[in-house]
Amino acid sequence: MQLRIPGPTPVPPEVLQAGAKPMINHRGKDFAVLIQSLTARLKELFVTKNDLYLLTGSGTGALETSIVNTLSPGDKVLGVTIGEFGERYLDIAKTFGADLVRMDVEYGTPADPDAIRRALQADPAIKAVIITHNETSTGVTNDIRAVGKIAREFDKLLLVDSVSGIGSLLYPVDEWGGDIVSASSQKGWMTPPGLAMVSVSAKAWEFNKVAKMPRSYWDLGAAKSYLAKDQTPWTPAVSVMYAMDKGLDLMMHEGLANVQARHARIANTIRTGVKDMGLQLLARDETYASNTVTAIRVPEGVNAGDLLRTIRADSDIELATGQGSLAGKIFRIGHLGWITDEDARIILDGIAKALPKVGFKAGAVAGR
Amino acid sequence: MQLRIPGPTPVPPEVLQAGAKPMINHRGKDFAVLIQSLTARLKELFVTKNDLYLLTGSGTGALETSIVNTLSPGDKVLGVTIGEFGERYLDIAKTFGADLVRMDVEYGTPADPDAIRRALQADPAIKAVIITHNETSTGVTNDIRAVGKIAREFDKLLLVDSVSGIGSLLYPVDEWGGDIVSASSQKGWMTPPGLAMVSVSAKAWEFNKVAKMPRSYWDLGAAKSYLAKDQTPWTPAVSVMYAMDKGLDLMMHEGLANVQARHARIANTIRTGVKDMGLQLLARDETYASNTVTAIRVPEGVNAGDLLRTIRADSDIELATGQGSLAGKIFRIGHLGWITDEDARIILDGIAKALPKVGFKAGAVAGR
Repeated sequence: MQLRIPGPTPVPPEVLQAGAKPMINHRGKDFAVLIQSLTARLKELFVTKNDLYLLTGSGTGALETSIVNTLSPGDKVLGVTIGEFGERYLDIAKTFGADLVRMDVEYGTPADPDAIRRALQADPAIKAVIITHNETSTGVTNDIRAVGKIAREFDKLLLVDSVSGIGSLLYPVDEWGGDIVSASSQKGWMTPPGLAMVSVSAKAWEFNKVAKMPRSYWDLGAAKSYLAKDQTPWTPAVSVMYAMDKGLDLMMHEGLANVQARHARIANTIRTGVKDMGLQLLARDETYASNTVTAIRVPEGVNAGDLLRTIRADSDIELATGQGSLAGKIFRIGHLGWITDEDARIILDGIAKALPKVGFKAGAVAGR
Repeated sequence: MQLRIPGPTPVPPEVLQAGAKPMINHRGKDFAVLIQSLTARLKELFVTKNDLYLLTGSGTGALETSIVNTLSPGDKVLGVTIGEFGERYLDIAKTFGADLVRMDVEYGTPADPDAIRRALQADPAIKAVIITHNETSTGVTNDIRAVGKIAREFDKLLLVDSVSGIGSLLYPVDEWGGDIVSASSQKGWMTPPGLAMVSVSAKAWEFNKVAKMPRSYWDLGAAKSYLAKDQTPWTPAVSVMYAMDKGLDLMMHEGLANVQARHARIANTIRTGVKDMGLQLLARDETYASNTVTAIRVPEGVNAGDLLRTIRADSDIELATGQGSLAGKIFRIGHLGWITDEDARIILDGIAKALPKVGFKAGAVAGR
């Protein structure tokens, strides 16, 4: 089966096998080697000298971590959302008492850096900007390089959800900025779910000193003091760490630039292929279409569920539905992590074969 | 290597291999079968008809879950602590704003149910009791049956950390009580770390309706609404779930009563063995000594680190040190999950062989 949802992503057999090694003491010497080696390589792949922590949980846990460790209830935050995962990030900030200034961007388009600049100019009380790097629900990538520049210019804290971005997409953290950048093992890292990763800048630690939101499991202070003794505060998902150890080996061996070039090439193949079939991307413009997830409008007269079921039944490929307000309106292809050019062609063949069976007429205009 | 710390515990090869299966869609049909089957069997092993949720995280995450979903800042809570993990539970409650009434019990002894009764009588404003079932840091088991009776009598919410207890130790939740009971995969379940489990009573849901502590990742409302559609709110640790699927098979096949009888028998072998060597348990009385973890006083003139290093070097057995205020004063044997009578004898042999090498003189009185 080709699992081509935006995550969990397929995991190479050698990574799965690495995850099946016997347990070790998470307060012992073998674990010390493991966690320091994972941390060092993740820093290389984040292209950062910032601190970096592995947390047991999902990407959503990393997002909560970024907020509760840097902010206090009542802190004014510019929350930029371009899709369902942007909404989730904003929800977490609101739940913990942030005073949210919302910037809602039409789904299918990225945030306008100039609009962010204007929002920060308009309200100097804003302390932090939270934003999604790559919006998994719409297949759109924000221009984090531009946003990072603005955040630095205005001296704001920048929290970035890069769960489906960093690693697979270009994002050199130290160069572009991002005070806490969140990632998750089941995305481009060719690893099963269960681990989240956050890079933490000196500025984030400054905010941490006065941050009053309550935190316990996600407390970065605990993560920091335990990593200093080669441990995690709470028992970590050791088997997922073993798997990631192998997944990172594969990435380092391919080389970060090659990994990202492969993602760009395959995404282009996918986009060209679906457009050639007469389908329409949700992304209004290809310049910001994601290189890890492609969201495609369900064409007029076609039922999204029927389409995905037919692709699964006939071609053994699992694609993803739309989420939230996009349910039934789009379907999504995850093309991140362990994927080859040949896989991309197999996915396209599967879609092309299924479309006529579910009532698609090439040339019909997709519903807007 | 015999890994005999209180967790992670050894995982049978077939469980490790089950964890190496390819990824699936966590919003698809195969996952629906997996999560419902895990949940149903865990309810059997908790002996409860309460709701039960699998959370991706450690046992500490489950403890946070139990607190933030049932309490509001300022709520008066009786916090009973008999060791380091009791301290941790109280810390979490305090962090999120509970008004804590502490009951500190001398390490090495359990809580006195009558003292809990008197505390509840003395302060009717107390809404909830938080307590550890089996204190991993001291090897002492609290009488949860008695505490549960009192909580019911006074109509208080009872939150129980049973991370190193339930499954391995007798704890029929519906009979004894416990509104949220927390557990964790790497303890008696023969599964790698990465999953936490909580059972949630109707009374806990009543408290949940008015509970104002902020929660997002650990929100049980989200867990409930997603489980109703056979999912988890956030991407779960799928590979650890695969492993647990096999681990629970093994437990069900052995039978819960047999699993618990095996733990009792092996713990007795361990306790008898170490006493026969002239060592002293931290537990003041064997009636409440834990059947999953044995804490042993480091004898006079012996260095705890030397002892554990010698056991590791000579017999390839990894035991655990003391934590917090018990560091250097005790060492601990984890004997839960995948362990046989033969393993218990191997552990005892390892200790007996190492003791004379690190300066132990049989007959010397242990330091108090």
